[in-house]
Amino acid sequence: MEFTDLVEDRRSVHDYADDDLDRETIEAILREAVYAPSSYNLQPWEFLVVGEDANRERLQEVAYGQPQVTDAPVTLVVFGRLDPAAHVDRVLADQVEKGYRDEASAASTRESIEAMREYSEAERRVWTAKSTALAAMSLMFAARERGVATCPMGGFDAEALVEEFAVPDGYEPVMLVTMGYAAEDADDETLPRKFRRPVEEVTHFETFDPETTDARAPVAGRRLNRRRPRAPDQRATRLRPRARRRRLLPASTTRLRRYRSARAGPARSRRR
Amino acid sequence: MEFTDLVEDRRSVHDYADDDLDRETIEAILREAVYAPSSYNLQPWEFLVVGEDANRERLQEVAYGQPQVTDAPVTLVVFGRLDPAAHVDRVLADQVEKGYRDEASAASTRESIEAMREYSEAERRVWTAKSTALAAMSLMFAARERGVATCPMGGFDAEALVEEFAVPDGYEPVMLVTMGYAAEDADDETLPRKFRRPVEEVTHFETFDPETTDARAPVAGRRLNRRRPRAPDQRATRLRPRARRRRLLPASTTRLRRYRSARAGPARSRRR
Repeated sequence: MEFTDLVEDRRSVHDYADDDLDRETIEAILREAVYAPSSYNLQPWEFLVVGEDANRERLQEVAYGQPQVTDAPVTLVVFGRLDPAAHVDRVLADQVEKGYRDEASAASTRESIEAMREYSEAERRVWTAKSTALAAMSLMFAARERGVATCPMGGFDAEALVEEFAVPDGYEPVMLVTMGYAAEDADDETLPRKFRRPVEEVTHFETFDPETTDARAPVAGRRLNRRRPRAPDQRATRLRPRARRRRLLPASTTRLRRYRSARAGPARSRRR
Repeated sequence: MEFTDLVEDRRSVHDYADDDLDRETIEAILREAVYAPSSYNLQPWEFLVVGEDANRERLQEVAYGQPQVTDAPVTLVVFGRLDPAAHVDRVLADQVEKGYRDEASAASTRESIEAMREYSEAERRVWTAKSTALAAMSLMFAARERGVATCPMGGFDAEALVEEFAVPDGYEPVMLVTMGYAAEDADDETLPRKFRRPVEEVTHFETFDPETTDARAPVAGRRLNRRRPRAPDQRATRLRPRARRRRLLPASTTRLRRYRSARAGPARSRRR
């Protein structure tokens, strides 16, 4: 299917037919999912495929009993590795071999990647959730392309899941994704599509100035829009001295230089 | 393009041609991106489109000087709202109106969503990063479908960005995405595609048993695979009493019941 049609055709389906999902289809879907981009191509994702009755019941229990976990023939648990450098050897060897970087650039990039190991666990959870969610979205499109319905689920007890499925240290359960063929009478296929916030509302050209309250809510008793216009002196300008509180990397200029040279390795052209 | 081709055709491009990207194309891409699923359909995403020269330079500065930020005609800053309940009124009114839920189910779902406001900021950062990354991946496919190349970037100073662009409280910059037409000689178009960890390695059927070291690294001096098989008594079984440390929701059975009833609202069939 053309992507323009697929993106609108894909919906999150909660009710599944009794048909099984065969292993070849699951693997074909995952083969496309892993083309997703990731931070430094580090690919922190892992997929647990849960299809046996007893295991779906165990999974449902840690997912607050949500019915689609046993209704769907298969639920994937999408994990993210919390160690950013877990696959650094292969990732950099590949880029040197194919001509993306020379050895010096690879060495400096390795330092940047290994430095991420020092981030707090909170930062590494966000880091792995981002790359892993990119793969999860690709997976849902790849499934729908084959007529396989999915539903992403964030509502589960992560720590209970880790214990129940004996997950080794260092893997974050990021998302559950149910998979199967939609029931003919599934609400998510037969009812009108759920609304989306309009593009005009979520898009901001050059200046980030979102509506900070849900002012367009079509319900009675909505809150007033309490956002007041900021005075010009509250806007950041390049003239105002900045006291940066760096979250991702220390402000060390050594590390900044290392980061820049790693990103702009000699194998990459710089034309401006 | 068929998705099966598109998913392999899309690559992260670092070098861009001088051609501009027009506003209509950007809006058409975003119109497809927002079909992405999100937690409870809460759609926490916002997009700042940065294309003016001075603004691209400001953005490049908070992105550690990475050259693609000024090389590309446009970079999007993809933000995630940290307040899960920001759009709850519209989201639930829509689902009642279209027949997905009745009023009682909507009220109970509202309680669950508003309870997420009590999560720590660390949890809400992970929460918003997941839904927002789903939209970012959709955006990159929608762009490629139109011949527009993208590159997602996680390497930027989030706090400096928030200050430089006067971002209101409560929005997390999740990802930068450069957009434009690929340079003819872009490495990312001409060199062989970067490797992906094989599906057989990242997929685990019924039991989560990943390789915990990078044992397949094709480089000298790699670490030995130090993972030892676990004894059976280290595996979680249903017979072993569990001391769950709930991360996402307190173990209160009241709240669990509320969560279940919200998810399994009366408008949804339960067939097993």
